[in-house]
Amino acid sequence: MTVRKLKMTVSYDGTDYSGFQRQPDKRTVQGMLEECLTRVTGESVTVTGAGRTDAGVHALGQVVHFETSVPIPTERWDRVMNAALPRDLQVQKVERVPPKFHARKSACWKRYRYTLDTGRIPDLFRRRFRTHYPRSLDPGQMKRAARHLVGTHDFTSLSAARASVENRVRTLYRCDILEEESNALHIEVVGNGFLYHMVRIIAGTLVDVGLKKIAPDDLPGILSAKDRSAAGRTFPPEGLVLVEVGYTPWEAEEKEFPS
Amino acid sequence: MTVRKLKMTVSYDGTDYSGFQRQPDKRTVQGMLEECLTRVTGESVTVTGAGRTDAGVHALGQVVHFETSVPIPTERWDRVMNAALPRDLQVQKVERVPPKFHARKSACWKRYRYTLDTGRIPDLFRRRFRTHYPRSLDPGQMKRAARHLVGTHDFTSLSAARASVENRVRTLYRCDILEEESNALHIEVVGNGFLYHMVRIIAGTLVDVGLKKIAPDDLPGILSAKDRSAAGRTFPPEGLVLVEVGYTPWEAEEKEFPS
Repeated sequence: MTVRKLKMTVSYDGTDYSGFQRQPDKRTVQGMLEECLTRVTGESVTVTGAGRTDAGVHALGQVVHFETSVPIPTERWDRVMNAALPRDLQVQKVERVPPKFHARKSACWKRYRYTLDTGRIPDLFRRRFRTHYPRSLDPGQMKRAARHLVGTHDFTSLSAARASVENRVRTLYRCDILEEESNALHIEVVGNGFLYHMVRIIAGTLVDVGLKKIAPDDLPGILSAKDRSAAGRTFPPEGLVLVEVGYTPWEAEEKEFPS
Repeated sequence: MTVRKLKMTVSYDGTDYSGFQRQPDKRTVQGMLEECLTRVTGESVTVTGAGRTDAGVHALGQVVHFETSVPIPTERWDRVMNAALPRDLQVQKVERVPPKFHARKSACWKRYRYTLDTGRIPDLFRRRFRTHYPRSLDPGQMKRAARHLVGTHDFTSLSAARASVENRVRTLYRCDILEEESNALHIEVVGNGFLYHMVRIIAGTLVDVGLKKIAPDDLPGILSAKDRSAAGRTFPPEGLVLVEVGYTPWEAEEKEFPS
């Protein structure tokens, strides 16, 4: 019996989930995926995600891997799963990957987007995916500040104080501020890894810059302080989306498939 | 004590409402507005809408009127109401209108939009406001059929058989098919009045045209049959939005305000 390793790209509206990670008696993304996979395959399936998203955070392109010996053709997996999943959790794509692929460990970068609705009255149809912040923000100042964040830095000041990891050096490849006609401001970040609450604290800090409470050129000092209290506050989860997870191409390794 | 008549433009996500019209023990838009107005004013307030939307149907610009003697300045009404309303029901605008204004009777036209998501997997973030219909539709054929609907016709074939009105002659000013990059197809109609389920049956019929089950030039025959069974099926409520209600300008009558 061939065991296949599958990479599954999933989207979810995080509003009604207690985050990605499985927790007893809570509605979680991992729990829901495992429950459906177990129902579909008749096997006890464990899912590993590229990263845990917090309660209320959304995803367009979260990635998970799992193993199964059920011979469902790869191209039919998305349909099978989507028929079993609730409407707020979707499978976008399923690909077969070599045994050494790991959703978290093989990831090279992640792209997140944080969206603010700066309109006086929030856009009703997008309210679940935007943080309502009805203030006038200066995007030019925010863009200047964002440039200081790109590169390799110790992000201690911009991550939750209770984060337990030792090494807080991460690389941001991009940090862009995008304006949209309809009172929306997107903060898009791409990086090789993100610390706990890091994107939400970057959002809160750039908003303080947009309000002119913090000057763009204060950012290097905030980073070098290595002190959470030097930065802005943690913005709420509803505006945050995990857009994409990037991997090195493993198609070249396809010969490794055991059959 | 001056009684003021106010026109209020409201938006709602209809997903969790049993329609516009008040019903005992049900969550309805009218019921929610009246409950909030009564709480805010301390008066027993009745609200009259431009039209009733069915359970699950949304609105960007539904219009209601009501009377109150509470002297809240007109420009502050939206804030007062939005602070009291749930997140899926919003007040966009409040204007003072002359006593003879009536949300339904003074309306000249209404604009509705029906949106189909034709992607294989529905757009997760817009799923509450689109009907998922993963088929390939020919928009050119739909546009040709739509042209036959514009004008003054007896719309018996395109309204629910159980509709109780006598006169089923209505005028459609526009019936447009708009394509959007992301697998969305919008059917936009503007008319002087709409019969029960009329937009949802127009949507179902135009989809049959898009699938080439009905030819564009069959539309005149469908209309003249005056028989519900000649047309396509009633499409589900989630794709339907009441976008706007048009009135003749009454600003000229402002001198009529009793002060």
